[in-house]
Amino acid sequence: MLFFTQCFGAVLDLIHLRFQHYKAKRVFSAAGQLVCVVNPTHSLKYAPTRCAAAQASTEQGILPPCHHHEAVHDPQLAPCTCPLFSCPWEGHLEVVVSHLRQTHRINILQGAEIVFLATDMHLPAPTDWIIMHSCLGHQFLLVLRKQEKYEGHPQFFATMMLIGTPTQADNFTYRLELNRNQRRLKWEATPRSILECVDSVISDGDCLVLNTSLAQLFSDNGSLAIGIAITTSKVHSSEAEM
Amino acid sequence: MLFFTQCFGAVLDLIHLRFQHYKAKRVFSAAGQLVCVVNPTHSLKYAPTRCAAAQASTEQGILPPCHHHEAVHDPQLAPCTCPLFSCPWEGHLEVVVSHLRQTHRINILQGAEIVFLATDMHLPAPTDWIIMHSCLGHQFLLVLRKQEKYEGHPQFFATMMLIGTPTQADNFTYRLELNRNQRRLKWEATPRSILECVDSVISDGDCLVLNTSLAQLFSDNGSLAIGIAITTSKVHSSEAEM
Repeated sequence: MLFFTQCFGAVLDLIHLRFQHYKAKRVFSAAGQLVCVVNPTHSLKYAPTRCAAAQASTEQGILPPCHHHEAVHDPQLAPCTCPLFSCPWEGHLEVVVSHLRQTHRINILQGAEIVFLATDMHLPAPTDWIIMHSCLGHQFLLVLRKQEKYEGHPQFFATMMLIGTPTQADNFTYRLELNRNQRRLKWEATPRSILECVDSVISDGDCLVLNTSLAQLFSDNGSLAIGIAITTSKVHSSEAEM
Repeated sequence: MLFFTQCFGAVLDLIHLRFQHYKAKRVFSAAGQLVCVVNPTHSLKYAPTRCAAAQASTEQGILPPCHHHEAVHDPQLAPCTCPLFSCPWEGHLEVVVSHLRQTHRINILQGAEIVFLATDMHLPAPTDWIIMHSCLGHQFLLVLRKQEKYEGHPQFFATMMLIGTPTQADNFTYRLELNRNQRRLKWEATPRSILECVDSVISDGDCLVLNTSLAQLFSDNGSLAIGIAITTSKVHSSEAEM
């Protein structure tokens, strides 16, 4: 009897999972977009990031902030850009992608438009959701970070970095879009190069910023779907539109 | 000699002013949009807003928050919605526009798409920039507020309210757009009715929210240009796009 009850339970679970999968597919694949479910990275709360370490060095008058690798070795030498990981690795731009994939197991997605589905938004700050996006012959890194800029008030920050030089980054425009509950929020900007510092982009607030309440409005069952599109930007002709 | 020097100075000033006017016109009238320069309202820092007063009453178990006028008199009776003004006036929806124009000297602009140019963004919080927008047979109130939700960290909140009922408000979608320095931020939502409380919309963060650093990136000479567009929204068909 117990065996049959368990079998019935398993069948019910399978039906439920199948329904969930179908629902997700229906919602996000309407425009043929790729959906990537992104789990939060393990947050090393007390590990200083490389940029923070660099800034500390700067305060002692040793090296410029976030560009310590450039100053010491080679302008094309990138530190490991995984935020919150205190990874001692550094290497040339060409091998950053393989390092991020192999060491930090960061997924890479192909396609001009994808949906980034960040799970477990309720996890305490600091938490990061990271993915690589291969598009238009280049690789980009999307970082979504939950951080307490003001103590007790976590916010979400989303930005896109090009795994390339700042000059290459100037040729692109990225768009992040949230769309739910009759509300839509779009952020468009030029990506930064990973040779710059993701921490300073976020602390400057020069990215998509969401309060917790707004993040909840855009979330569904604790997951936040961010539509991502990358285009080449020869001229910012749209600037004079307004 | 002094007279001629003064005359020459005056002519130079006139040329400079003419150039500034031409520049402003060229930047903002490119798409034939109306531009409204909006000066900050006098901020009565210590005057409690009507909603705060209503909420205080609620805590004493007297009246529901922000709907005290509805409960006492008529569901169509609106309090004065000028934020930061402790105005004792209340009246029917039909006469709210004339009250706002005559008593609070709030400008009203016609047109489907306008540009709201808020000046003196550097003024300390709390400060409000308010304008009425007449469009599609209805009047809307745009409120931009600088407020310190977290002490010492002022933020900007922008929302649009319909001078009408919540049912009427559901028929519209408003869009606020910032566009400068190769960055673009768009917020789209259904306007709230002015029978709801502008203070609670802002404290919930259910509106366009800007950190000071982002507001500075979008500002030009201490002024922030917000493009506004209102459309009718029969069905939110765009919701399933992502």
